[in-house]
Amino acid sequence: MNQTKFELSPIGRVEADESQGLSQLQIDEPYRPALLGLDRCTHAIVFWWADKHDNPADRANSLVMDLPYAPDVKSGVFANRSQARPNPIAITTAYLLNVNQETGVVDLAYIDAFDGTPVLDIKPYLPMSDLVLSAEYPDWMEGFPASMEEAAKFFSDPENIKKFS
Amino acid sequence: MNQTKFELSPIGRVEADESQGLSQLQIDEPYRPALLGLDRCTHAIVFWWADKHDNPADRANSLVMDLPYAPDVKSGVFANRSQARPNPIAITTAYLLNVNQETGVVDLAYIDAFDGTPVLDIKPYLPMSDLVLSAEYPDWMEGFPASMEEAAKFFSDPENIKKFS
Repeated sequence: MNQTKFELSPIGRVEADESQGLSQLQIDEPYRPALLGLDRCTHAIVFWWADKHDNPADRANSLVMDLPYAPDVKSGVFANRSQARPNPIAITTAYLLNVNQETGVVDLAYIDAFDGTPVLDIKPYLPMSDLVLSAEYPDWMEGFPASMEEAAKFFSDPENIKKFS
Repeated sequence: MNQTKFELSPIGRVEADESQGLSQLQIDEPYRPALLGLDRCTHAIVFWWADKHDNPADRANSLVMDLPYAPDVKSGVFANRSQARPNPIAITTAYLLNVNQETGVVDLAYIDAFDGTPVLDIKPYLPMSDLVLSAEYPDWMEGFPASMEEAAKFFSDPENIKKFS
């Protein structure tokens, strides 16, 4: 066990307003050169700090939890995507609508992070490292959508959202 | 611009020795309960701190770089997967061979991190959030493998490794 700590600085923040269909990143000025070429990618993986979920006192207590969508299952946090985790880094793969390097605004089709969430990194989605055709769900998630495209259709039905929240 | 900093603590480390085909994670004892259920997932996304590449003095200078596999392209770091980046967090999606909650050993088919690299998080690979069938490469990566399965075949040919390094 070591007591090493690593330090992160936000590179920008999420600006989101579901009622207005707004899902964008506002990248801070010093980091905008790093957006060069992102407009030629179709999808990006956005890394964000889940501070709206983060309660440092809870982190140690959230190693094993109940799953809202699988009432009989106790799940270790490394087997689920809960945002309350030892290092509360979350990722969202998102379709890129527009990248403006000058203003630092990156428009996304959707991001599941609250308004004001700190952004830590953006990486291009690369099929050779990120697209796993043979990946299967654990049994307690059987029947969940088979891709992000399927998920967009699935969760456009409010009944399906209710089932899993 | 805010000057907020966030702190991470490693949850374990990578143990890797390519000559022996060894690719595993050694998870520290306090975090092992969080592995519960991971053995029922097929693939995981491993988050690691790229400290073997990290030179804090270089971070600000590595916002835009040349790409070894695309000599004419200048690329912002948010449009590539270089490990030298403002927040040097890397991810590897890996096939899970075995999870031992008691010893904290997670055996992977492969991980592209050096021996001793600090591990920050493990998340299950979930097709609904991670599998994007319609994702395309930026034009400078045209011809790269179309999935992780294709990449495994492609990079088993040493000639192909040479092309891209």
